[in-house]
Amino acid sequence: MVESVFGDVFSRPALDLKSREIATVAALAALGNAAPQLRLHINAALNVGCSRAGIAEIMIQMAAYAGFPAALNGVAAASEVFAARDGRESV
Amino acid sequence: MVESVFGDVFSRPALDLKSREIATVAALAALGNAAPQLRLHINAALNVGCSRAGIAEIMIQMAAYAGFPAALNGVAAASEVFAARDGRESV
Amino acid sequence: MVESVFGDVFSRPALDLKSREIATVAALAALGNAAPQLRLHINAALNVGCSRAGIAEIMIQMAAYAGFPAALNGVAAASEVFAARDGRESV
Amino acid sequence: MVESVFGDVFSRPALDLKSREIATVAALAALGNAAPQLRLHINAALNVGCSRAGIAEIMIQMAAYAGFPAALNGVAAASEVFAARDGRESV
Amino acid sequence: MVESVFGDVFSRPALDLKSREIATVAALAALGNAAPQLRLHINAALNVGCSRAGIAEIMIQMAAYAGFPAALNGVAAASEVFAARDGRESV
Amino acid sequence: MVESVFGDVFSRPALDLKSREIATVAALAALGNAAPQLRLHINAALNVGCSRAGIAEIMIQMAAYAGFPAALNGVAAASEVFAARDGRESV
Repeated sequence: MVESVFGDVFSRPALDLKSREIATVAALAALGNAAPQLRLHINAALNVGCSRAGIAEIMIQMAAYAGFPAALNGVAAASEVFAARDGRESV
Repeated sequence: MVESVFGDVFSRPALDLKSREIATVAALAALGNAAPQLRLHINAALNVGCSRAGIAEIMIQMAAYAGFPAALNGVAAASEVFAARDGRESV
Repeated sequence: MVESVFGDVFSRPALDLKSREIATVAALAALGNAAPQLRLHINAALNVGCSRAGIAEIMIQMAAYAGFPAALNGVAAASEVFAARDGRESV
Repeated sequence: MVESVFGDVFSRPALDLKSREIATVAALAALGNAAPQLRLHINAALNVGCSRAGIAEIMIQMAAYAGFPAALNGVAAASEVFAARDGRESV
Repeated sequence: MVESVFGDVFSRPALDLKSREIATVAALAALGNAAPQLRLHINAALNVGCSRAGIAEIMIQMAAYAGFPAALNGVAAASEVFAARDGRESV
Repeated sequence: MVESVFGDVFSRPALDLKSREIATVAALAALGNAAPQLRLHINAALNVGCSRAGIAEIMIQMAAYAGFPAALNGVAAASEVFAARDGRESV
């Protein structure tokens, strides 16, 4: 069921893939219940054209809507993803 | 403080305004604690170029990440906004 | 069971009643799932010596930890309580 | 932005620092999304005059408003902080 | 998509329908973001053999895991459903 | 207090023990704030007659009501419990 939902929904034309990933990253950061999936979708967002600064901005924006703890957890997840893509340790 | 946060954050160049509104609509729908602000940002997203179908897609995507109740509440908020913009009652 | 929990816990000496009400108001505002109980405990906090400005400060502080929507819902609840105590409509 | 929010808000006179820390500890325990920040604010509450028994009472009170899992996570965080301040392992 | 999920999942044999409705009522009461769907599933649980006292017990149990506010909201939803089935006003 | 709540509530006759454990597993999976207690109650549910397939069905059902991240975390918790009962590593 998971695959068909992802396959079906992510390829529908009314919302482009980059916007979908931005929506998913924002929701996962706000909910804060799925660090592995948040890292996966931060990677996916970067792969479809979102910049690292754009990811950081999503997390800063989440501070306003979901509070600093959620935003800081999102920043930590992004920091790990950026480090892994650079082949280095996250600071 | 609210104004300065919104003023500062929403005008930063690393994330365009349409992407910011998509992130905000997704997060508010996922959290489900602020129907008036969700309607406000659905309106804002429409004003900066997001289509109605795009808003609907965000809500469908939220079904996967935050569950059907959150998604259905988001669809109801969107339906009210669309109706208000058309000068008619929401169904 | 409700009465015994409230009776037992609220009268224990290690945390004074005003501090208990502040903790309760903060938690209910952050969780955002119980507007009637939030109003009840805002009233109780005022009755044991918390000022209206103090209640407002709790809500502002919640913006940082639970996001603006939670804080604004808390401000709305406080505004209703203040108005009811003054025998007037909330604005 | 984080610093200015903390600097501004924590020094406002309508709510004393001990009450602010109690509100923050209660909210972070109830939300349960930020163990490092919960430990930081338990330490801060102890530093401004809250007793260890008072911290424990906040967590017991959270059982009523946010459920036993949130309260038990809060007790675990407090236990780690108390042990660290005593220079010993948490049990 | 909603229909196919409900159709598919609710008819799978490894979990009987009454147990599914109990799980759904408990989860919706704990999450607290969907009063209409909570009422719908309380009705469904009653229709497949759960007693009114059983529904009340689920809500009491939720007090332990999700806090009193969530439990009291669940009791209110159950009270409305019971009243509607009796053709009378909820108290 | 914890013991008396568990002792009192779990032995009340209006809801059988298997149904109580199903409700508890569903709520803990939906809330997602207590992995150790979720594993404890998955074990308890298995001990009072719920099958492994039944536990898996609860988690699948949670995907609909609380989103895939909550469901996948629940599946991971169940997988660890099943492996521990078999005396092997979770995959």
